[in-house]
Amino acid sequence: MPSPISEFVYHRRVQFPETDASGIVHFTNFFKYVEEAEHALWRAAGMSIAAQAGDFSWPRVAASFDFKRPLRFEDEFDVHIKVAEKKSKTIRYTAELKKDGEVLAVGSLTIICARRTPGQPLRACDIPADISARFDVAR
Amino acid sequence: MPSPISEFVYHRRVQFPETDASGIVHFTNFFKYVEEAEHALWRAAGMSIAAQAGDFSWPRVAASFDFKRPLRFEDEFDVHIKVAEKKSKTIRYTAELKKDGEVLAVGSLTIICARRTPGQPLRACDIPADISARFDVAR
Amino acid sequence: MPSPISEFVYHRRVQFPETDASGIVHFTNFFKYVEEAEHALWRAAGMSIAAQAGDFSWPRVAASFDFKRPLRFEDEFDVHIKVAEKKSKTIRYTAELKKDGEVLAVGSLTIICARRTPGQPLRACDIPADISARFDVAR
Amino acid sequence: MPSPISEFVYHRRVQFPETDASGIVHFTNFFKYVEEAEHALWRAAGMSIAAQAGDFSWPRVAASFDFKRPLRFEDEFDVHIKVAEKKSKTIRYTAELKKDGEVLAVGSLTIICARRTPGQPLRACDIPADISARFDVAR
Repeated sequence: MPSPISEFVYHRRVQFPETDASGIVHFTNFFKYVEEAEHALWRAAGMSIAAQAGDFSWPRVAASFDFKRPLRFEDEFDVHIKVAEKKSKTIRYTAELKKDGEVLAVGSLTIICARRTPGQPLRACDIPADISARFDVAR
Repeated sequence: MPSPISEFVYHRRVQFPETDASGIVHFTNFFKYVEEAEHALWRAAGMSIAAQAGDFSWPRVAASFDFKRPLRFEDEFDVHIKVAEKKSKTIRYTAELKKDGEVLAVGSLTIICARRTPGQPLRACDIPADISARFDVAR
Repeated sequence: MPSPISEFVYHRRVQFPETDASGIVHFTNFFKYVEEAEHALWRAAGMSIAAQAGDFSWPRVAASFDFKRPLRFEDEFDVHIKVAEKKSKTIRYTAELKKDGEVLAVGSLTIICARRTPGQPLRACDIPADISARFDVAR
Repeated sequence: MPSPISEFVYHRRVQFPETDASGIVHFTNFFKYVEEAEHALWRAAGMSIAAQAGDFSWPRVAASFDFKRPLRFEDEFDVHIKVAEKKSKTIRYTAELKKDGEVLAVGSLTIICARRTPGQPLRACDIPADISARFDVAR
């Protein structure tokens, strides 16, 4: 059993449709980048966030970003994602986007574990122990 | 029972994230616009393309566009979508994007009727008669 | 001269590419919806946010959302956007997404006025008086 | 001077917002994938397609795809892009998307060289010789 994971650095290059007519990356893509980093973090933890898709879903309950510097087409950057908080039903990540060592943006993303029952709305539930055990809060 | 429908004009305004750093609408959005027009055509025919989502799905099997003039942020335009061809399993639409009477782009989209069976891949099937009856080939 | 505007209700229908494989609208689209509402608010104030594009730009400096209920394909909903705060260089909006009177999500978006000088990075500047005069803080 | 390039294999993983509520990748993303591969091809040729952004632009004049097999979240796949045709003003690429050796989709993308003159519409022009020399038609 691998030791639990608490952070991951995800490398990415800006693609053209992510830019907008002001010449920089549209701000909504920063949220996509953090989610991509989250999924890479889960893979690094030996899981797919979609693996239990029939049973569980992980809706996002909160997301925020402070933007400091823009990204442009073909820029290469890193998303430093960390597990900031673990509760019985939720995980909160923090993320820094960095290019050449400079912080471009700082964000937060909170997800909740939800159980799917056919024909019913999603219902929040405790994070299964085997999933929770793979993550540790970053120091 | 309403008479079958063969075409629809869908009005739309360009939104900011649809533009790219060259200052115009990214070409992939033209395909989104045509699909939006298709779904509006189905609603005008009294249906939702997702209504039988448990049973049927409508994968796209071919899509093409010739681009003549660009679109820019906040431009208003129309998608003129027509049912160009109906076969037992497929429907082909043609679409013209127009702004102020000028043709900006001309496209084509072909969809196929597919049946969902849990745990199996989608399988092409005949379009149900009650759906097919709602559409007519445009002249 | 019209009186200043402090809020706007923007009506929208969910489009198919805005959904994801979990069956609901991907959370990043809520940020797009708020920005669309912002641009509609500016048009209602008699302006385009891109009108002075040669001179000014309006980068987003902060954005956040709390998500309570999901949106699905073809859902119709409203974005209630309000001017929550005006400072010399920034405007902060708050937004509620509602469907059938129920609040689905609550967000905030802060933009800053920036001057473009060819060959130089964007630089924050005071909001021009004629633009600032068109907006009022909502009560 | 490196020898001209005629093809490139671009590796990619499906990201979550690229999927839709039918559980597969939305078809418009196939066009994004080909454009990403095109830009990687240009980088492999020692250039950025945006490098002469002040002078030249490369609008897309035609794009098409035939879709055979779906892609799903976290699938890894390759885009095999080839220079299929070079004319004085245009380049046409063909592309195959493959997963585990199986062809998922086959597409075509045609771009035109356009000159930017401030305050005027883009105008088609001959591809500069130093750019044209970097590409060769694939056999």
